[in-house]
Amino acid sequence: MSLSGRHLIGGAWVASGGGVGGFSHRNPATGEVMSPEFCEAGADPVDAAVVAALSAFSETRDLEPRWSAKLLEAIAAKILDLGDVLLNRATQETALPLARLTGERGRMINQLKMFASLVRDGSWRNATIDTAEPNRQPLPKPDLRRMNRPRGPVAVFGASNFPFAFGAVGGDTASALAAGCPVLAKGHPSHPGTSELLASAALAALLETGLPRGLFGLLQGRSHELSARLVQHPGVTAVGFTGSKKAGRSLFDMAAARARPIPVFAEMGSLNPLIVLPGAMRERCGQIAKDLAASILLGGGQFCTKPGLILTLGESGDFLAALTPHLKSSPPVTMLNQSLRDNFAGRIAEWSGTSGVTVLIRGEPSGYASVSPSLFCASASTFIEQAVLQEEAFGPAALVIDCDGVAEMRRVLQCVGGSLTGSIHAGTTDDRLPFLCELETLVGRIVFDGYPTGVEVCGAMMHGGPYPATTDGSWTSVGPAAIGRFVQMVAYQNAPDQFLPPELQKSNPPAIVRTINGRRTTEPG
Amino acid sequence: MSLSGRHLIGGAWVASGGGVGGFSHRNPATGEVMSPEFCEAGADPVDAAVVAALSAFSETRDLEPRWSAKLLEAIAAKILDLGDVLLNRATQETALPLARLTGERGRMINQLKMFASLVRDGSWRNATIDTAEPNRQPLPKPDLRRMNRPRGPVAVFGASNFPFAFGAVGGDTASALAAGCPVLAKGHPSHPGTSELLASAALAALLETGLPRGLFGLLQGRSHELSARLVQHPGVTAVGFTGSKKAGRSLFDMAAARARPIPVFAEMGSLNPLIVLPGAMRERCGQIAKDLAASILLGGGQFCTKPGLILTLGESGDFLAALTPHLKSSPPVTMLNQSLRDNFAGRIAEWSGTSGVTVLIRGEPSGYASVSPSLFCASASTFIEQAVLQEEAFGPAALVIDCDGVAEMRRVLQCVGGSLTGSIHAGTTDDRLPFLCELETLVGRIVFDGYPTGVEVCGAMMHGGPYPATTDGSWTSVGPAAIGRFVQMVAYQNAPDQFLPPELQKSNPPAIVRTINGRRTTEPG
Repeated sequence: MSLSGRHLIGGAWVASGGGVGGFSHRNPATGEVMSPEFCEAGADPVDAAVVAALSAFSETRDLEPRWSAKLLEAIAAKILDLGDVLLNRATQETALPLARLTGERGRMINQLKMFASLVRDGSWRNATIDTAEPNRQPLPKPDLRRMNRPRGPVAVFGASNFPFAFGAVGGDTASALAAGCPVLAKGHPSHPGTSELLASAALAALLETGLPRGLFGLLQGRSHELSARLVQHPGVTAVGFTGSKKAGRSLFDMAAARARPIPVFAEMGSLNPLIVLPGAMRERCGQIAKDLAASILLGGGQFCTKPGLILTLGESGDFLAALTPHLKSSPPVTMLNQSLRDNFAGRIAEWSGTSGVTVLIRGEPSGYASVSPSLFCASASTFIEQAVLQEEAFGPAALVIDCDGVAEMRRVLQCVGGSLTGSIHAGTTDDRLPFLCELETLVGRIVFDGYPTGVEVCGAMMHGGPYPATTDGSWTSVGPAAIGRFVQMVAYQNAPDQFLPPELQKSNPPAIVRTINGRRTTEPG
Repeated sequence: MSLSGRHLIGGAWVASGGGVGGFSHRNPATGEVMSPEFCEAGADPVDAAVVAALSAFSETRDLEPRWSAKLLEAIAAKILDLGDVLLNRATQETALPLARLTGERGRMINQLKMFASLVRDGSWRNATIDTAEPNRQPLPKPDLRRMNRPRGPVAVFGASNFPFAFGAVGGDTASALAAGCPVLAKGHPSHPGTSELLASAALAALLETGLPRGLFGLLQGRSHELSARLVQHPGVTAVGFTGSKKAGRSLFDMAAARARPIPVFAEMGSLNPLIVLPGAMRERCGQIAKDLAASILLGGGQFCTKPGLILTLGESGDFLAALTPHLKSSPPVTMLNQSLRDNFAGRIAEWSGTSGVTVLIRGEPSGYASVSPSLFCASASTFIEQAVLQEEAFGPAALVIDCDGVAEMRRVLQCVGGSLTGSIHAGTTDDRLPFLCELETLVGRIVFDGYPTGVEVCGAMMHGGPYPATTDGSWTSVGPAAIGRFVQMVAYQNAPDQFLPPELQKSNPPAIVRTINGRRTTEPG
């Protein structure tokens, strides 16, 4: 299957207009340039893709209510049809092992199917009906019927580190499409060929289902201008993003400064503090050190849920002695691209040169994009004083902070600010409560005696958290609740039945659960 | 009952520190200065109020799950205890008729009780549980339990035009307190005494229930600096606002520019287009003209849902002839304050001087803060070309736009942009569909053959809409769903039962509805 290097716009593979350069990707394991060259989208492709998306959006109004379920299921099938071509391209582009990518593909497929089920179930519409009381005094009560509708075209910026689960047709795309929003995916320049293959599956699904082709577009490029054009385009109504704090905040600022601001749902990674209390240390120091090292190194340390900050209470010598060899014995990690490796190496160099920081293992760069793991420790006061230690090191590294007491550890947590996760390991004699209270306001998910990597895709998942983990702690980007980001509510007052969407009509044609006068029911009403 | 003119901070009535001036309010009907003078909050009172709110917030963690229901019910009772003192002060401060204020007080009380019921019901927690599967392959599935928790202190900027329903303890305050968020209410300078009385009821309720006194604070003032301090304070986690687009956008911009951005839920009024199709015109022109005039004049035209833009298709001469006398015969309206009246008069003068605009009635200012109604008409092309016509005239005025055809009316609607409401009056032969499609993406509530003023407080209400009606079309500020603005989700992974909030514990002590493995139930699990 040969790649075109082009954008997918309105169902056609389109090259950039004249004057805009292209870019090539290098295999991070070898540094070799991979073919083909990819187009860099300038203003014209962005405009064309948004126009196609808006046109598709207006066409979907009259489709049967569950059209997006069919689309999501078809995309899942077409992705599986790509077989090893997809897996091989992805492993070459990202240096992620084939086994890991095979598992991640399964997760991507499950996400698509999960959102299809959610669409069929219909509860995400939150259809709510209050029937009229024409004789109420002093004024009659009108008939009011409200439900969630799609916002409109959504720009999706996928992540480098999960080319499938958070890629061109990952969770953001799946949840936006499920809600009925056309998606303009920006292919991540770390895996442009993978993005094109995924887009080709989406196109095949659109053709098979006969749905409007503008429902999914792919724009390739690595320029800041492309991101800005997408976020600032008047036809774009929301943004999904997974990546760095710097890039996420930049998109957020642009979106907030628009004449008509739009929401940016940016998941920007975090420090993910992991607390090991003295009792846990005494009871299972060796096991924790081993499992924690595995969590730090998972995916080469390139997980947004990587436990990057380990907090201990009192003497941590034995623990460090147990943890160090696990990280030291790890072979070098090939990172997703050279720029990530260089940024990571820069952060490691900064930490190494920070006053008060003890370097337990200094990882060294090697090859084109590889680096070996690092481990640091410092006092709580050093962590609080040195702002650079409060920034994420995206890669195989962790920082251990020894705290003098409960109050000091709580100050450290306050300093960390918002994180996706916080973990507490306690022994039989430890009091978790003071830290639990702190974490409840600072993180999206609290892990007990475990590790934050491994994000279960299920109804109760919260993959989000207070800023700077995300732009706002009120949503999750994983699990069915992620659809809530891409809807807006519309109410119909005293509408004749035939003008209502099927979900709100008296006879409830799609047979979904609705709340009628406060009672959840599938009955007519 | 004598008023102090002070701020309410941590349960005490506190004057501003030295050097910050005070302000007086004038009775808009007479222009007379009303006593007392009110303090203008500088930096110190804001800091003190936020500190008290944060302290109260941390104290609430260990309260029984439904503490806020008791508080809301106690506030409602204490407000009723104020009796005529409250109604009389409000009517003097706002010039709103006693009957209207009595009705609005009822609505405020009902809102408080509605949110108390919601808290008792517990469904707003959206408690979601996925139980563990320890034997799942290839990896065990963890136990995950998620629920909504309060964000933290919320700054509430009430509206001038609804001193009760959207005032210091109006819907924003009630929904934030219901969620468990401490509230810092900025008293609107149009009714500072009313705000103080309402705050005194909140304080009495806090004292009676024994809840932390920092849960409700009142800051008086009219300076831009006070608003900025509240929105920029690091301890404030969200903002509720009802008022003008200019003020709302200013708060939104400040909140987005913070080191840690916070959401601003600003309801900023709108044009509320109302369409009268030719069949409706033929069948009931006289009735529509009469009812529409009443809707335009409700509350002196100072409703955020006032139908300010009337769209007709083809010849509208008869309709204008019918509408004009209803508005012309109305006595002058006393507006909420002189500044609103002057701004309104300025907008009327702008419209009157705009090329292409026909002045049907030119309202004249009178008295201290009064003005008589105005009516204008123009062609669709004039409306599209003249940006000033697309701005709300907050007061007793409407603009009628005659459109040449369906396409032109749709262009006008696009030009209007986001509104809280859109209304369509159709006769038996009219085709509503093209306008309905348009309104579904542009407004929060679509009214059929009716008028948008009168916002029912019920589960299916949507009082919100795309920008610039609000900062984002995904929430409502009226009805139980308004609580969703003030929560964030937290998930607990593999938590021992005793560390879970009661709502997530296996035995379900508060007996709320939860979603367990995808099934809604009150059973343990």
